[in-house]
Amino acid sequence: MTAPAPRDSKWRARVEASFARQAFMRHLGAEMSHVAPGAVDITLRMTPDLTQQHGFFHAGATSSIADSAAGYAAMTLFPAETGVLTSEYKINLLNPARQATLVARGRVIKPGRTLTICQSDVYGIDETGEVHVATGLFTLICLPGMKD
Amino acid sequence: MTAPAPRDSKWRARVEASFARQAFMRHLGAEMSHVAPGAVDITLRMTPDLTQQHGFFHAGATSSIADSAAGYAAMTLFPAETGVLTSEYKINLLNPARQATLVARGRVIKPGRTLTICQSDVYGIDETGEVHVATGLFTLICLPGMKD
Amino acid sequence: MTAPAPRDSKWRARVEASFARQAFMRHLGAEMSHVAPGAVDITLRMTPDLTQQHGFFHAGATSSIADSAAGYAAMTLFPAETGVLTSEYKINLLNPARQATLVARGRVIKPGRTLTICQSDVYGIDETGEVHVATGLFTLICLPGMKD
Amino acid sequence: MTAPAPRDSKWRARVEASFARQAFMRHLGAEMSHVAPGAVDITLRMTPDLTQQHGFFHAGATSSIADSAAGYAAMTLFPAETGVLTSEYKINLLNPARQATLVARGRVIKPGRTLTICQSDVYGIDETGEVHVATGLFTLICLPGMKD
Repeated sequence: MTAPAPRDSKWRARVEASFARQAFMRHLGAEMSHVAPGAVDITLRMTPDLTQQHGFFHAGATSSIADSAAGYAAMTLFPAETGVLTSEYKINLLNPARQATLVARGRVIKPGRTLTICQSDVYGIDETGEVHVATGLFTLICLPGMKD
Repeated sequence: MTAPAPRDSKWRARVEASFARQAFMRHLGAEMSHVAPGAVDITLRMTPDLTQQHGFFHAGATSSIADSAAGYAAMTLFPAETGVLTSEYKINLLNPARQATLVARGRVIKPGRTLTICQSDVYGIDETGEVHVATGLFTLICLPGMKD
Repeated sequence: MTAPAPRDSKWRARVEASFARQAFMRHLGAEMSHVAPGAVDITLRMTPDLTQQHGFFHAGATSSIADSAAGYAAMTLFPAETGVLTSEYKINLLNPARQATLVARGRVIKPGRTLTICQSDVYGIDETGEVHVATGLFTLICLPGMKD
Repeated sequence: MTAPAPRDSKWRARVEASFARQAFMRHLGAEMSHVAPGAVDITLRMTPDLTQQHGFFHAGATSSIADSAAGYAAMTLFPAETGVLTSEYKINLLNPARQATLVARGRVIKPGRTLTICQSDVYGIDETGEVHVATGLFTLICLPGMKD
């Protein structure tokens, strides 16, 4: 997709303020590490609190940052005075997530007035490079009047 | 599906011990509230830490308990000396999750030697009754030698 | 879900007329075998034209009737002067589809003004009984003005 | 993913012979238009037989070629004496498929001994260019002994 254009001059401030209100992201320790029109990255550092029974990142933690990255990527293109909700998503867990840091890269594939479709890819990063940990497809819904 | 039979006499102890090692479930405050062959429920009480920007449960929190319920429902039917990993899932978020308590009900639809397919439904519960908050389909993989 | 109510007195005629215009269903040999509010079944008899390389029903044939069953189940609850399109779906193929007849049972899980979520289960039927061949989740969109 | 390597010198002949046995692809009029390690394209020309009620390609036709493209992309990397089955997939329909020709581009994202994950994107092509009609994620299973 070439050059999606924000429809609200305050898009960046709205996205950052909404993310700051996501208490769950703070509870996980996630940070928004990149914001551009149609593209948001969210980064999560490994802590023991985020693990499943083998000591890897729990699929729920991996999915949570993939979901927020997709949702805010969509929101960068939403008009003012609207909110974003996830309607549905699907995620494939490709490799064990046991790296020091995860980054979820949410990208808009198809913007729309009501529904926006995003892809979100999660990479595990350590000193040896990047591993493709997960890939997902997300449907986000734009809700007029439900201010984020 | 009629009466799935565990293949390991210690299935319940293994499932409970593995869940106790999921630090992420503890970090969310989730509890395993029902365990039977092919069926596991996980319960999560609302706290401010679990919310997204509108004050509802974050889709990531909802999905995380749906995933653990599906995974442990599958594991009740796995042989000894095996582990469980989520291969992929898809979830539809049906209604805002703003109730006092969520319960995820993971059920085995199709057991298999390598792949087990589960459905997981999440309900929001408060004094007025139950709301169907989410429904998902999960593929779990049985890993011989990767003891849970 | 209890007793979904059609919003258009001509719902049955509209659904049947729209199905009759789906040339692709005719090309496969599929028939609408049950129609009720929030529920549509579509039946497909095995012919050599529908097979993949092992002689089973091709996943595409199985999915096609699951999709039409879900779409028309949703449409039974749509207002007059609207059309239905599939926004997305996910399907798990549970068992080889090698029976004489497939029936896809589409059921509305969550009706909505814009988005309706359906489950569609496909069963293979022969003289020995029913096999659960596939299960899927579908998001249908209601399009005002796009008359079906 | 860089340079996936086939594990069977006869991979191309096996893939082409298996596709030739998919009677369903022939029934739709689909052709395999590109075959390389980890990548298969399938092309489908519009005919009235393939339409839904608005005259677009039926989602089932679009999904069917996306599924075969993903399955054969996976099979290019499978060892000899194995077969391929679709375990599950999810597809988002992004734009109406009303172009003269569809091409589904199946690509391996993550090869594996048992499970291979593919992305399949479908484009509608006419004199004005390409439209991104659908995107999907597919899990394929490699079955030793089930010769394709």
